[in-house]
Amino acid sequence: MESAIDTHLKCPRTLSRRVPEEYQPPFPMWVARASEQLQQVVMAYLGVQYRGEAQRDAALQVMRHIVGSFSLADGPQTHDLTHHTDSSGFDNLIVVGYWKDPAAHCRWLRSSQVNDWWSSPDRLCEGLGYFREITAPRAEQFETLYAFQDNLPGVGAVMDATSDEIEEHGYWGSMRDRFPISQTDWMKPASELQVIAGDPAQGGRVVVLGHDNLTLIRSGQDWADAEADERSLYLDEILPTLQDGMDFLRDNGQPLGCYSNRFVRNIDLDGNFLDVSYNIGHWRSVEKLERWAESHPTHLRIFVTFFRVAAGLKKLRLYHEVSVSDAKNQIFEYINCHPHTGMLRDAVAAPA
Amino acid sequence: MESAIDTHLKCPRTLSRRVPEEYQPPFPMWVARASEQLQQVVMAYLGVQYRGEAQRDAALQVMRHIVGSFSLADGPQTHDLTHHTDSSGFDNLIVVGYWKDPAAHCRWLRSSQVNDWWSSPDRLCEGLGYFREITAPRAEQFETLYAFQDNLPGVGAVMDATSDEIEEHGYWGSMRDRFPISQTDWMKPASELQVIAGDPAQGGRVVVLGHDNLTLIRSGQDWADAEADERSLYLDEILPTLQDGMDFLRDNGQPLGCYSNRFVRNIDLDGNFLDVSYNIGHWRSVEKLERWAESHPTHLRIFVTFFRVAAGLKKLRLYHEVSVSDAKNQIFEYINCHPHTGMLRDAVAAPA
Repeated sequence: MESAIDTHLKCPRTLSRRVPEEYQPPFPMWVARASEQLQQVVMAYLGVQYRGEAQRDAALQVMRHIVGSFSLADGPQTHDLTHHTDSSGFDNLIVVGYWKDPAAHCRWLRSSQVNDWWSSPDRLCEGLGYFREITAPRAEQFETLYAFQDNLPGVGAVMDATSDEIEEHGYWGSMRDRFPISQTDWMKPASELQVIAGDPAQGGRVVVLGHDNLTLIRSGQDWADAEADERSLYLDEILPTLQDGMDFLRDNGQPLGCYSNRFVRNIDLDGNFLDVSYNIGHWRSVEKLERWAESHPTHLRIFVTFFRVAAGLKKLRLYHEVSVSDAKNQIFEYINCHPHTGMLRDAVAAPA
Repeated sequence: MESAIDTHLKCPRTLSRRVPEEYQPPFPMWVARASEQLQQVVMAYLGVQYRGEAQRDAALQVMRHIVGSFSLADGPQTHDLTHHTDSSGFDNLIVVGYWKDPAAHCRWLRSSQVNDWWSSPDRLCEGLGYFREITAPRAEQFETLYAFQDNLPGVGAVMDATSDEIEEHGYWGSMRDRFPISQTDWMKPASELQVIAGDPAQGGRVVVLGHDNLTLIRSGQDWADAEADERSLYLDEILPTLQDGMDFLRDNGQPLGCYSNRFVRNIDLDGNFLDVSYNIGHWRSVEKLERWAESHPTHLRIFVTFFRVAAGLKKLRLYHEVSVSDAKNQIFEYINCHPHTGMLRDAVAAPA
């Protein structure tokens, strides 16, 4: 048993963790570990927005173009592909790439191939929407949690190893306690989302300025290798409640501090569904996420079910990763997306 | 809005509360306030144990005798009467008295009338069981929480006033955060319950030594004045789940750190049921109580229901009080009680 906070990220606390030293978690969970060399990661959600079957091939073509650009110099170490239908009825494909070197990501993003494609006037007249939502949390600004130990997905795939069983899980507040920065920092949100270029209602190019400690959660499910009993556990018992909870956040998240909630299904390069999914939630703060998670009936039901089955899971893979980031390490840019896409819905006009 | 921790009990923190300053509770709740003069309270649970209808009158007679003794000099400021059937099938009457002056309680307990009755050999041969479970938390060692503001029951009845709306509620961990002592102390349990006189299996007189930070929760419901809608809310919606949860703790609490759990119904001097009840739970620590409360399906269901209805409650009165105490301020004594009574089940034999 060891702390979720890696040794080299420990520091003298000014804030205490929630549970006393003698706390014992009720079942084992693990986190991803990286060497001290990993100081910051980049999580890039690169989206294509379209509407219905007629645009599907064109959208998939763009998705494959983006995936192709990952093979350029300084591309990400790992990526996956997803589809979801949003609350406005639009389809969205997202290519999600992870870098373990922000400088490499920066070079990639500024490379002529990548930059020219994004900046081209052609993007404005193809009938598709595009977005990029990129955050770069420092090592002390994210935490992970896995109910399994091998082939870690998401940010775990760009890290080096899996921990021993960790202490800080199985209680409300453990997410916060796994953040190294929580040792000394409340992770308070500093300001509001602001539209700093363009007008979401008009379409075209829109840039949103994030804010410090904007919170991103990726919470995943992988039942591809599960046997019948665990497929049924997930599909019949967990998924209906999970779907209810994620739909609730998608449609009613604004007053709770949930800027955007997308329950996405993984796909292959041809757009075929895989038996893998995750939820992508953007929140005003860890605190707002905590409040929802520990009080909403759907999430409490999922939590109870997970508590019951966690110790016995074999092939059903459940995990999450949560990060905060500095406003200066966030990019939220949209091209011809509908005004409820991503950060657009809750972003206020910048002061004149 | 104000802190649940009264001004004169604030001190420089070495432990942080769980939620950031900007936390806003989702509905109003209140706590009991007392002047600085109140430094310690006494909570005395004085029981009579019997079995079935045949012994009921005799047991009620003893209960009335105890209530009569409260009119002696230095008696408690308030008391109430309860009945419950325990896991061994025994009936129990408990007279619960509260003192706001531990010295007065001490004088009362040592008065010849009270002491002689308890010490008399007659108590051993009346066919009834007797117990007294008395704890005396200091002002910094207890917290209260009410969904109403008038006529506070329990320890609130010996205090002076009701607070303004308080900040620290509506999140897991708020119970701990309302304890003044939590500002600097984890409230860790120091040792085990120990039988220090007698043998529970043999009956007769048994004395159990408690331990520092043994935790007592009284969690109450009063539907006496509720209109039909709130009676139905309580009796049809809340009570069945509450009963399940309390039965679970009564029968399965030991491995969770719940020493004793009694869901009691208030009665009048003749033993008639009132539409008032509460649960009396003794726990190894606040931490063990937290773990159960925030993870058990029954309690989560109650929590969700309470969240939904709390802001609209009119006459249904829900509240709790939780205390820890020092071993030296605890009395656990039993006469001819069955070996699963109160602290007896989980008390270990003292080292030779």
